[in-house]
Amino acid sequence: MTTASATGRPRLWAGIDIGATKIHIVVADGQGQILGRARKKTRSERGVDAVLERVERCLDEACDLASVSRPALAGVGLGAPSPVAADGTVVNAPNMGWRKLPLARILRARWHQPVCVENDCNLGTLGEYEFGAGRGATTLVGLFVGTGLGGGVIDRHEMMRGHNRMAAEVGHMVVEAHGRRCGCGRVGCLEAYASKAGIAGRLRELQISPEPTPLLDDLDPDELSSLNSSVIARAYRAGDAAMRIAVDEAAWYLGVGVASLIALLGPDHIVVGGGVVEALGDSYLAKVRASARVATFPAEAFAGVHIVRSQLGDDAVALGAVAHARRELGTGAPPARRRKTRTAAGS
Amino acid sequence: MTTASATGRPRLWAGIDIGATKIHIVVADGQGQILGRARKKTRSERGVDAVLERVERCLDEACDLASVSRPALAGVGLGAPSPVAADGTVVNAPNMGWRKLPLARILRARWHQPVCVENDCNLGTLGEYEFGAGRGATTLVGLFVGTGLGGGVIDRHEMMRGHNRMAAEVGHMVVEAHGRRCGCGRVGCLEAYASKAGIAGRLRELQISPEPTPLLDDLDPDELSSLNSSVIARAYRAGDAAMRIAVDEAAWYLGVGVASLIALLGPDHIVVGGGVVEALGDSYLAKVRASARVATFPAEAFAGVHIVRSQLGDDAVALGAVAHARRELGTGAPPARRRKTRTAAGS
Repeated sequence: MTTASATGRPRLWAGIDIGATKIHIVVADGQGQILGRARKKTRSERGVDAVLERVERCLDEACDLASVSRPALAGVGLGAPSPVAADGTVVNAPNMGWRKLPLARILRARWHQPVCVENDCNLGTLGEYEFGAGRGATTLVGLFVGTGLGGGVIDRHEMMRGHNRMAAEVGHMVVEAHGRRCGCGRVGCLEAYASKAGIAGRLRELQISPEPTPLLDDLDPDELSSLNSSVIARAYRAGDAAMRIAVDEAAWYLGVGVASLIALLGPDHIVVGGGVVEALGDSYLAKVRASARVATFPAEAFAGVHIVRSQLGDDAVALGAVAHARRELGTGAPPARRRKTRTAAGS
Repeated sequence: MTTASATGRPRLWAGIDIGATKIHIVVADGQGQILGRARKKTRSERGVDAVLERVERCLDEACDLASVSRPALAGVGLGAPSPVAADGTVVNAPNMGWRKLPLARILRARWHQPVCVENDCNLGTLGEYEFGAGRGATTLVGLFVGTGLGGGVIDRHEMMRGHNRMAAEVGHMVVEAHGRRCGCGRVGCLEAYASKAGIAGRLRELQISPEPTPLLDDLDPDELSSLNSSVIARAYRAGDAAMRIAVDEAAWYLGVGVASLIALLGPDHIVVGGGVVEALGDSYLAKVRASARVATFPAEAFAGVHIVRSQLGDDAVALGAVAHARRELGTGAPPARRRKTRTAAGS
């Protein structure tokens, strides 16, 4: 029961995921079926206008593959690595050099079509909720483990944004109040332990030991800050001792964070995505689960929680942007449950 | 615009706060105006039936003071120190020795009138939201610092209960993953640092120092587990060195927990109540605020948060029970905003 346009063709939406390094775009129908997909480097160092031109070209490529013209899209959703104000302004994306950028307004004026903008991890969580591993959840937490650690929460079908629209900053819950310094400048944040930055931090500590490990010998310590997931997985699988410790500890800490999230939010589903879990697979997730089981209070609260891998992988944010556009920009109802507000105008 | 009964008299509700040591009951109108108030010891060691008889006598006393007969109440709300299932079953209240007790059903059968049961800290937060320091909040967190550390969250007018109705267990967020053991058996929970139990724990560590402090010299170390707030405040004000450290650290940790709550939930109001804050006052709260300010990411998220003292004090849970009964049991709409579901039958 895909909502169809007046011509009888299913309405199509574009979902845009803008990150510091890449632009990833899908064109999909209201059920999350992807008909076109395109990717480009962001090149944020070239400035906003240059980035937006790249977005536009990337969007046109995805539209071509989906055999739809850009003006014929029902709407465009976009995720940015920043808190996003209600009017679609990107508040602060340090990795992009964007601050108080009225992105929704700019793109509407440029493209003459409906555009909505939201935080990328909120959208990744929404994507999993609508089309992926979080379908059917009552209270869903999404965790995205990359260089940093982002998250989102969907509760009773709605994004939990908080009063300030800055909620779900799971990476900056404090788990070691006297611990390691985080990239954010504070001390002991979950991100400083459970992300790739956390793994790199632990490796730095371990590498100053008298016997450096064989695989990591080749890595320049300065490169640890851009440690990628496949290097992590390769060293881990090869049995590199330092990497084993660093990754196992990162998984343990993520489990501790998961326990705090269960105590606080009472979710039935926690979806874990991002490069680290993709590269390390289910054995990593089993360690997260084991740690969370021990640390969760009350014990009964752990029993009902499904801790699962992302199903959408790289498409999570872009598909979440499609779902968000469909919700916000019209003919928005998902198949199963209609929202009470903002109901469909046409069909 | 208090909702009135058919006789023209304002409808009255009873709010019951059952704790391990005391029963505290108010009879109030739908605006939270208290017309009768009564208190008794719980005596939970005497068993459920004996406790419920004491509750009934206490309720009759409060009704007498309010000049209303028990059957004429519009409904009864009750808060218990336990997760509470949707049908009003008390899941597990270890301090009371209650487990899977269908309290709402029992009381309805006993009193032949509408009764609803909810977790006490959720109700304390609701009380502050409807009638106290949390009025007008979009996203409100309530923190109740006593022997333990309980909490509740109201988001967009609704209690955040989570899928499992065990959410808002703020005391069991992990803040020192390699830290002190908590009363719950786990390690490093906020409660193990920021509650009276946390203060007692720190004092135990400090008392083994070579120079015991004058005021605490008189305290049997075994009594530290039942350390009361007025002793804490007296020793603190007298400048007892160990108590200064223990209390200041507890406040610092509560601030760290507050920072995690801000990052996760994006609240505009955080109301702090309970014996410790009542006894120590605003200087304590200033320390909590200072610690939270440093630890909150992003910094902008801290700026918009009002961290304030409870206004309802000992009445918070009982008044929350009144608000909850009014919401759940009919003629439920608060003056400003009506709920979409469960709207009033009579008026």
